[in-house]
Amino acid sequence: MKHTINAIKPVNKEAGKRAQAHLNRLTKPPGSLGRLEELAVKLAEIAGNPLPEAAPPASIVFAADHGIATEGVSAYPQKVTEQMVYNFLNGGAAINVLAKQAGACFKLVDVGVAADLEGTGLIDKKIRYGTGNFLKEKAMTRAEAEQAILIGIEMAVEAISQGARSLILGEMGIGNTTSASAILAVLRGGHIEHIVGHGTGISPEKRLLKEKVIRQALAARKPDCENVVDILSAVGGLEIAGMTGAVLGAASKQTPIIIDGFICTISALLAVKLSPSVKDYLIFSHLSQEPGHKVALKMLGEAPLLDLNLRLGEGTGAALAYPLLESAVRILKDMAVFTDEGVPALQNSEKTYN
Amino acid sequence: MKHTINAIKPVNKEAGKRAQAHLNRLTKPPGSLGRLEELAVKLAEIAGNPLPEAAPPASIVFAADHGIATEGVSAYPQKVTEQMVYNFLNGGAAINVLAKQAGACFKLVDVGVAADLEGTGLIDKKIRYGTGNFLKEKAMTRAEAEQAILIGIEMAVEAISQGARSLILGEMGIGNTTSASAILAVLRGGHIEHIVGHGTGISPEKRLLKEKVIRQALAARKPDCENVVDILSAVGGLEIAGMTGAVLGAASKQTPIIIDGFICTISALLAVKLSPSVKDYLIFSHLSQEPGHKVALKMLGEAPLLDLNLRLGEGTGAALAYPLLESAVRILKDMAVFTDEGVPALQNSEKTYN
Repeated sequence: MKHTINAIKPVNKEAGKRAQAHLNRLTKPPGSLGRLEELAVKLAEIAGNPLPEAAPPASIVFAADHGIATEGVSAYPQKVTEQMVYNFLNGGAAINVLAKQAGACFKLVDVGVAADLEGTGLIDKKIRYGTGNFLKEKAMTRAEAEQAILIGIEMAVEAISQGARSLILGEMGIGNTTSASAILAVLRGGHIEHIVGHGTGISPEKRLLKEKVIRQALAARKPDCENVVDILSAVGGLEIAGMTGAVLGAASKQTPIIIDGFICTISALLAVKLSPSVKDYLIFSHLSQEPGHKVALKMLGEAPLLDLNLRLGEGTGAALAYPLLESAVRILKDMAVFTDEGVPALQNSEKTYN
Repeated sequence: MKHTINAIKPVNKEAGKRAQAHLNRLTKPPGSLGRLEELAVKLAEIAGNPLPEAAPPASIVFAADHGIATEGVSAYPQKVTEQMVYNFLNGGAAINVLAKQAGACFKLVDVGVAADLEGTGLIDKKIRYGTGNFLKEKAMTRAEAEQAILIGIEMAVEAISQGARSLILGEMGIGNTTSASAILAVLRGGHIEHIVGHGTGISPEKRLLKEKVIRQALAARKPDCENVVDILSAVGGLEIAGMTGAVLGAASKQTPIIIDGFICTISALLAVKLSPSVKDYLIFSHLSQEPGHKVALKMLGEAPLLDLNLRLGEGTGAALAYPLLESAVRILKDMAVFTDEGVPALQNSEKTYN
């Protein structure tokens, strides 16, 4: 983990400046493509190249179970995590459909589903059969939390070595908004107001129960808010730790990573805590309906690209935002430039930056 | 025009209900894909089919010049309209790049550029060499306004007959935010507060001039706010009228039409005034930086899909939103459903709606 963190460099601001200068020469009023231009500059900074790539993307879903689910904090039984893993492997989930549209290679990583699984395409990295019920015990050991992070790093680095030029990150795990909410409460200093939401669709009564469970668990577990591994060990999730690792791995390989909704953003927050330089490698895709998401984004100072009232997870919001990355790249590469005479002319590939 | 307007039927709410019922059976918490599900239902209503199509799209850009540009209301000289037409024909403009990404067939229609043009791909439907300067005279005759609408209808119907299943609508015309702002002022009752913006990037002084020009022109022209053709004739633009026609044409063929930014939304407002049923065929793509756009959207009661601070036009915002239509369609068609036992299963094509 230390090795990967040490390999994360600040993004290349000079490449971003060159991309910006190029954007200003394209046949459009300067700045008229708004956030798409900001995205183009960011991708250039990440790649260290004024002509970055985003395609092909890889979509990675980390799946795991949560002992806390037995407290009745989710609208679905834990069994659904296993069922959904098979749905992912069969290509029937929303992320399968959207990853295919994005031209992404799809990977499903079992880091801790509470069932023995098998099937073509399954990446079996199971650390344990779900976390412990963190109302009563630690979610996992510190060694297990570190192991999950290392698996995440490995998965991201592997996808990039196989050719991925951007990552679409997602998760599946019944009960994981409870874990993510608890982590967020720790990171912002113990308050759980405006954090706990309706997850996959629980009743107002269940939401109050969820809030109570988190409050009691934090009082009992007392995680060290400065120590990411301790937080994950106390109230974390194996897939949340896996995504934190994937973020670190992608950043260490100068690859943009598209962050999905609430749970994924919590993983990103943890990664940024481990290495502040990570933040500039993240593309925040959408604003989730889950109230904690807004809180976490504010802590990061980030505004996501889309606001479509999604609350599914799996990386679906990240996949929906992916075409914007491709648009930003294509705008840089394929638009004509104004000549010195102010007349539009197609780019002369090699001479663009002279 | 009357023939086309009579052919516009209310959308098929029953097909939308069937799409909604199907969405509720897919392997995800009900409603968890938020606005993407609303979009899927809307596309089903438009097509009259719970499994609608969005691909392939066609991108149509209407280009024309504006006599009002001679009052110094734009950051660019009128000559730029002509230069940009050649840029479109050469494939170097932003909309070319984004239409290609969307897999759209691209069409450039000259309805009134103030220059003789030629080039491969140019659709020459020139009605006149730009509008008159509407500070001093009518922009065009009522017959010319009607002709421009008819050309728009023809272009949309032709693209659909060639196989397009959705339209990406856009425009090019130096000075056209001034015309669009004037039309909007007429439609909302003569007030020009909070309507007039910086267009392609004018100074605060020029913006004040633009406001003054519009105020004086409206006082001099006195268009009948209940008569679309009269409004277009008084202060309109030929490309604005063309887009109004394209909206009518698409709606008459039960085809979704993706509305771009401010100017395109004004064309849509005019089309809705001609036939209120049109509104349900429109997909509003993005919120422009131009202040009048928010005003026009509020009049229509619509919230666009994207908010990316764009202010380019050409249909670029509509093209950027297009992948969301394709996602909505793919979610309907390709996701697995929960069986009666609550287990995910791939769709059995023919039996989906039994």
